[in-house]
Amino acid sequence: MNFNTILGSVDFLEHLRGKTASFLLNTSVTKTCEIPNISQAGIPGKLYLTPTLDSEFLCVKQVRSLENIAQTPKGVPTPALITRAVHELKPFSNIEVLNLGLEELPKIEYFKVHDFAISASDAINKNANINAMEVFQKGVQFAQELELQSDYVILGESVPSGTTTAHSTAKALGYNVDKLFSSSFKNSPDDIKTKTINEAMALINEEDDVFARLSKVSDNMLIFTAGFVLGSTGRDDLKVVLAGGTQMASALLIANSIIEVMGGEIDSKNIALCTTKWIYEDENSDIKALLEQLSFSINAYASDFDFSLSSHPALKLYDEGEAKEGVGCGGALCYASINGVDKQVLTNKIESFLG
Amino acid sequence: MNFNTILGSVDFLEHLRGKTASFLLNTSVTKTCEIPNISQAGIPGKLYLTPTLDSEFLCVKQVRSLENIAQTPKGVPTPALITRAVHELKPFSNIEVLNLGLEELPKIEYFKVHDFAISASDAINKNANINAMEVFQKGVQFAQELELQSDYVILGESVPSGTTTAHSTAKALGYNVDKLFSSSFKNSPDDIKTKTINEAMALINEEDDVFARLSKVSDNMLIFTAGFVLGSTGRDDLKVVLAGGTQMASALLIANSIIEVMGGEIDSKNIALCTTKWIYEDENSDIKALLEQLSFSINAYASDFDFSLSSHPALKLYDEGEAKEGVGCGGALCYASINGVDKQVLTNKIESFLG
Repeated sequence: MNFNTILGSVDFLEHLRGKTASFLLNTSVTKTCEIPNISQAGIPGKLYLTPTLDSEFLCVKQVRSLENIAQTPKGVPTPALITRAVHELKPFSNIEVLNLGLEELPKIEYFKVHDFAISASDAINKNANINAMEVFQKGVQFAQELELQSDYVILGESVPSGTTTAHSTAKALGYNVDKLFSSSFKNSPDDIKTKTINEAMALINEEDDVFARLSKVSDNMLIFTAGFVLGSTGRDDLKVVLAGGTQMASALLIANSIIEVMGGEIDSKNIALCTTKWIYEDENSDIKALLEQLSFSINAYASDFDFSLSSHPALKLYDEGEAKEGVGCGGALCYASINGVDKQVLTNKIESFLG
Repeated sequence: MNFNTILGSVDFLEHLRGKTASFLLNTSVTKTCEIPNISQAGIPGKLYLTPTLDSEFLCVKQVRSLENIAQTPKGVPTPALITRAVHELKPFSNIEVLNLGLEELPKIEYFKVHDFAISASDAINKNANINAMEVFQKGVQFAQELELQSDYVILGESVPSGTTTAHSTAKALGYNVDKLFSSSFKNSPDDIKTKTINEAMALINEEDDVFARLSKVSDNMLIFTAGFVLGSTGRDDLKVVLAGGTQMASALLIANSIIEVMGGEIDSKNIALCTTKWIYEDENSDIKALLEQLSFSINAYASDFDFSLSSHPALKLYDEGEAKEGVGCGGALCYASINGVDKQVLTNKIESFLG
């Protein structure tokens, strides 16, 4: 297993080789996920449970808030399996869950679940109604006050329909987004997504500032993560891997817009984005083109892991583009790469979860 | 490799995944081991050396106080091999030896050997003559003052004939013990053990309080460990894995009896017991039934490791029930499970010690 460099140099990730990592999972629900067929990341009608179930499986390898582990209609297993498998083979120093607006709390003991008193956001086509400034500031503060328990932090996310809100967010902030955003669908349901995003854009007034736009058409995870990025850049001791694809790119674009308004600069030397091969090679999106719109430089990497060593039909769906990212699996796979995890062993471990 | 939950939920052990551990070995001699054929955990006539030799092998992979590593008459190798193998594949942060009454000090440099000024106890069928209150208080104090050098502590033991003293202790404290205690013998030498335990019980007067009973029929390790458990519950920062089977269960029962007399409560959320598959599946004992007699809840786990991947006859004796626990091997195996150690690799490592 290895990784490819999307932007920047190998040095950042190489210098993390062998170091210990904490895994933080940003979890949030946007009611955008209730729009029929908007996402396949979860169980139809129960997509709001996806981040809850992902948290449970990642921490304790059990799905407690539902009988069966979240599967998409076509039976694509949640990427939580990948992150969990990495954790079993080369454990993170600790896992913590950030509740940025869950409908149901994960049923786990001992693991830290941070409560930010943030509610699930509304659907973006009806106005998400987020107090964006408050959520952003909570992200800044969390990064500023985070106690280090290991050498660096991997920040993943689980937000059903999160690629839609990431897309609308970047578009609302004026970035070029055409054909650059991925979806967890192979054949991206452009009609529904496009319709939803267009409805969201219609809510934006020209005079809306950054936070007003975010309040209407973003999600809590994206805004909080942007705050986290900016809060972390003020610390010399905090190294952050944003584990995700186009959603994490969108969080960086938010940070970029905020810093442009504020007139400051982002010292991004201690931040990187790590994603999957499935995102990097996705023909329906372009993570690199998204990141190149940042006014600061960013190191970005993609794991080279795929399911070429597996014959399990459910896992093969990843290689066929049915699922690409989530639950920080891209970051987890890069972490596995720089910690000597073997591809065959990892494949076997993931397969073992499927029975 | 994985683990099974005997009591409680997976959460406690799961949240220790990837965290660092210190290994403390409680070592003690009870002259009960001089009763002929009472135990096979060591060399006949030299059973008192077993904890000394186990300490040496665990720390430095050499047996310095005797020519050959402790073997039972049938050639069952000490479980110190298992704990040592885990330590080589996924090292503990540090190993320390607690001298709770050794006949001979282990010949090791650099490793901390805590001296508690406790003498080897006498045989329980002649009155063990332990200052139980003092030993207990030393355990409490040690836990209260222990400086943390890692994320949690694994507490193992090496006490020849320790299952006999554990059995008599629980019986003397009024617990139901019939058929619940294991032995390191496959065909538990019930005549000798039963006779010894009955003789010990005859020393107990009805009016004897908990400490008086412990003084007569227990051993230093059990009493000290009970104190350690109670001392650790007063700290929020100390997480403890009791690594052992029915002996560690007996130590918990002592803590339970003491707290009942004192009228307090045990907050056991930061304590767990971890043992082996051989104990968990032992038909001649019942660790779960012992733990269910506690008035507080306890998380308890059993490793699923066995020697099914080995063809070494000496190791196969474990799977045949000839040996089941000791030197914290159950805790070490659970630690291996949550740190990504591979079963085949561990099997090979253990085999390598046998030549």
